[in-house]
Amino acid sequence: MNRFDHRKYRPFAPIRKTDRRWPDQVIERSPQWCSVDLRDGNQALIEPMNVVQKRRMFELLVRLGFKEIEVGFPAASQPDFDFVRTLITEQLIPDDVTIQVLTQAREELIQRTFESLRGARRAVVHVYNSTSTVQREQVFGLDRDGIKAIAVRGAEIVKREARKYPQTEWVFQYSPESFTGTELDYAVEVCDAVTAVWQPTPDNKAIINLPATVEMATPNVFADQVEWVCDHIARRDSLIISVHTHNDRGCGVAAAELAVMAGADRVEGTLLGNGERTGNMDIVTMALNLYSQGIDPQLDLSNMDEIVECVKACTQLPVHPRHPYAGELVFTAFSGSHQDAIRKCLARRQSDSPWEVAYLPIDPEDLGRDYQAVIRINSQSGKGGVAYVLEREYGIQMPRWMQIEFSAQVQRATEESAGELNGPQIWQIFRDHYLANASGCSVHNYQLRRDNGQDRLDAEIDWFGEAMSVSGCGTGVVGAFVDGLNRQLAQPVVLVEYSEHAMGDDHGAGSDAIAYVQASVDGNRFSGVAVSEDIVTASLNAILDALARARDEVQVSAA
Amino acid sequence: MNRFDHRKYRPFAPIRKTDRRWPDQVIERSPQWCSVDLRDGNQALIEPMNVVQKRRMFELLVRLGFKEIEVGFPAASQPDFDFVRTLITEQLIPDDVTIQVLTQAREELIQRTFESLRGARRAVVHVYNSTSTVQREQVFGLDRDGIKAIAVRGAEIVKREARKYPQTEWVFQYSPESFTGTELDYAVEVCDAVTAVWQPTPDNKAIINLPATVEMATPNVFADQVEWVCDHIARRDSLIISVHTHNDRGCGVAAAELAVMAGADRVEGTLLGNGERTGNMDIVTMALNLYSQGIDPQLDLSNMDEIVECVKACTQLPVHPRHPYAGELVFTAFSGSHQDAIRKCLARRQSDSPWEVAYLPIDPEDLGRDYQAVIRINSQSGKGGVAYVLEREYGIQMPRWMQIEFSAQVQRATEESAGELNGPQIWQIFRDHYLANASGCSVHNYQLRRDNGQDRLDAEIDWFGEAMSVSGCGTGVVGAFVDGLNRQLAQPVVLVEYSEHAMGDDHGAGSDAIAYVQASVDGNRFSGVAVSEDIVTASLNAILDALARARDEVQVSAA
Repeated sequence: MNRFDHRKYRPFAPIRKTDRRWPDQVIERSPQWCSVDLRDGNQALIEPMNVVQKRRMFELLVRLGFKEIEVGFPAASQPDFDFVRTLITEQLIPDDVTIQVLTQAREELIQRTFESLRGARRAVVHVYNSTSTVQREQVFGLDRDGIKAIAVRGAEIVKREARKYPQTEWVFQYSPESFTGTELDYAVEVCDAVTAVWQPTPDNKAIINLPATVEMATPNVFADQVEWVCDHIARRDSLIISVHTHNDRGCGVAAAELAVMAGADRVEGTLLGNGERTGNMDIVTMALNLYSQGIDPQLDLSNMDEIVECVKACTQLPVHPRHPYAGELVFTAFSGSHQDAIRKCLARRQSDSPWEVAYLPIDPEDLGRDYQAVIRINSQSGKGGVAYVLEREYGIQMPRWMQIEFSAQVQRATEESAGELNGPQIWQIFRDHYLANASGCSVHNYQLRRDNGQDRLDAEIDWFGEAMSVSGCGTGVVGAFVDGLNRQLAQPVVLVEYSEHAMGDDHGAGSDAIAYVQASVDGNRFSGVAVSEDIVTASLNAILDALARARDEVQVSAA
Repeated sequence: MNRFDHRKYRPFAPIRKTDRRWPDQVIERSPQWCSVDLRDGNQALIEPMNVVQKRRMFELLVRLGFKEIEVGFPAASQPDFDFVRTLITEQLIPDDVTIQVLTQAREELIQRTFESLRGARRAVVHVYNSTSTVQREQVFGLDRDGIKAIAVRGAEIVKREARKYPQTEWVFQYSPESFTGTELDYAVEVCDAVTAVWQPTPDNKAIINLPATVEMATPNVFADQVEWVCDHIARRDSLIISVHTHNDRGCGVAAAELAVMAGADRVEGTLLGNGERTGNMDIVTMALNLYSQGIDPQLDLSNMDEIVECVKACTQLPVHPRHPYAGELVFTAFSGSHQDAIRKCLARRQSDSPWEVAYLPIDPEDLGRDYQAVIRINSQSGKGGVAYVLEREYGIQMPRWMQIEFSAQVQRATEESAGELNGPQIWQIFRDHYLANASGCSVHNYQLRRDNGQDRLDAEIDWFGEAMSVSGCGTGVVGAFVDGLNRQLAQPVVLVEYSEHAMGDDHGAGSDAIAYVQASVDGNRFSGVAVSEDIVTASLNAILDALARARDEVQVSAA
């Protein structure tokens, strides 16, 4: 098969630039962020978010500090229309947050878009049409003037409709869609024609958004394009130049960063990079890149567990273990020399001195995570490893995340005993660390009902000697219990990890079940383990065990 | 909690550059690739690869066309030592492939490294030590001269040991580890001191590898560093300048691309970016970025399913659905306007004209994939969707990937009938498309044995009217069957997707089970579905159903 043939592709032709300045720039402050999770992110999902998920995402975005949030494409989608209405009529939009909606540059769609926004305090109306050569020639069959006329007509209708709703503070945004495939002079010509209609001023700016709808070249080429536009566009002082990059070549974050160096004021993206095809550019990564350089990212990303959990629940997509800043493995060191260097740097560190630790570009604790040193006892063969010993000799099938955590406990013991550990010693460490929580909390009676796929749990628990009732709903008993805890406790609880299994009976434990959980309490993670004859009791007690550990450190208290 | 405070970080100080040339460059040919999957990739795994996995990975790398493969750190790891010996003594290294091994710059480790390579035809000995300010001051407690002396002494020992094994063609490689945190003039000073020992020539070059051990700044800064080194290093014409980037800021591919523009000749990385923390730079992405610009990537990446499957099996890590070029969702269009544009571009396309299709930077067929248009019937509510109808009315819980595929069938029918489809019509399309394979193959008798966690299957199948025996081993009956098929058929078969469930009895099917598979045959994907009273029969028949579809297109034949 010779279907794999590079000769069917043409190279992207970059512009020649003799006045390039962006490579000498360093980003010194955060751009203006706009989240498009609820629009570009949502439209790229196998199952788009339902209303509950949309509200949850919107509330998280507000809590993180986003001031501009694109919430949908109301003229194209009834659910989007309804969601915009809900946000406005239920007054869910804080005073310092502006919602944004997308529309194509067509009269009936623009009218419908404005209808959806009736009663909003302030809103961005984002109108677009496709301007690239491929789209002009192959999709629309129009020449440059024909495509420009669509944009201008759209701009006029936007201006006209806005006048009908004077109680709202309107901001206009235009995107030459497929900008990266558009001739630069033509892109500027169209944008200039649009702003000639809108007549923005330095006090009342319009937004010109330059989308890398498809990433088509190395990121420096996008920066060149943005710098060229900033240099040649009319009314620059009355415009906010925005970029919206995608990740087709794996360089969406790089392209946005270099574009900001090249003059962009504003960046559109999503949490952890959800979006069409390879995704939108990831605002979490870019914001933490700035943070790690001493720049205020203007977003509070300290509760990374909550962000990851919400994104996973709303998109039904995983977060990769190596995702920058957010993945499960990114603060883990497996190599002995890395561990040694990190240990020395941490030992020498003064709490008020700048962060300077080998192999850790950021302090994991800033994000509610720990640095994890993984040691392997006779590692690469696996046969003598900690997990293997516990499984073979004690029927404990530790989940992966716990193997990492537990290996730190074993390492400490190894250093103290200055030698190899045997099976019973490892088992003792496990019991001491995970099963010795005698003083803690536990579940007594409970009642569980399933109705229409929804579970409702009512449980009586012993909460450090006091009786407490917990009632909640969710999918499965565990989901319902966590829901109930969140109603009862002051700090938010997120279940990060959960697994359970029956223990074999070759070690005298009968048909006991064991449950392992990792819970995030107010952004900090705690592990819990419990054993019981009953799998439900084991699961609930494991969660309570994690909370009991949390209580010593972050003061979980009855609300 | 105010643990989230950017003020504890210092900005990276870029160099001032007045002679920057790289932004005017365009990459016009592929760099020299070196895979470090079996070294940097392997050492970052929770469970390092066993010998079977290492051989599988090595064989894939060879098949893809890698000419340099770093296979381990033999002086630090007995399994790595043993694997290097296996490669050499079992003559597994093709004549045009060179293996590379890593070692710290310490005498006993270098000696042990050379022992591991005894009998190799050609090998790269890659020696490194840490040179950054943080490592010098906090980890080693040495000044510049002290650290340089370690490198020089290491270079001398490498040279001395190499003379003991004159039958091997030796290539020397040096890395100033933590290069991105090292003062540039000092990095060059150390490299020059090393090559002063080695005395490379234009006919016998040494490799100087510049690792972004930790990604510390925007990718243009790394390009500046590489260009500076290329301009100031001694013996440039006798050196191969190599880069080795990591992905801490999500820009590992961008940094490598800009570094090649800045003068690097060679790139180290891994398949799909496995590696320490956030991973090494992803060679698959960078190579396909080149490919999509009409550049021969010097690697055959046409069987993407095989690459993904091997990486997942060897690393035990997932591949994200949005991973560039490789993820399950990257060739999927959900938006109606995107689908419309793609359809028009594909319809106008001449088979010999350059690829120019909106929203698809590469032809999915080059990688054995299809473009997938997802339509939603009354989509966002979900209640009227295809999957919902099939589940509610017919007990069919289609897996996600099949929903995407099946929606294309439904769309075709929608266009023909020019109206909405009802439940029985959708069910008819499902049966016609997936369950009408009466002419195909099926399994008769089989025997399954489990011993020590390994399953062995012996099955008699009807192969288009002929009897065929299939015997194989694996984990689970499905794994064993696929193993057996691979022994029997000419083309490699990979099981990409597999799921099954009992069908409810509210539609007259009793306790039937249904299995859904997607198999990749010689790099092309085919779906299969089968229903049976027995879950094993349903599973095996579903695989055979996929093969029956494959047979019409790619000629699967008994070997």
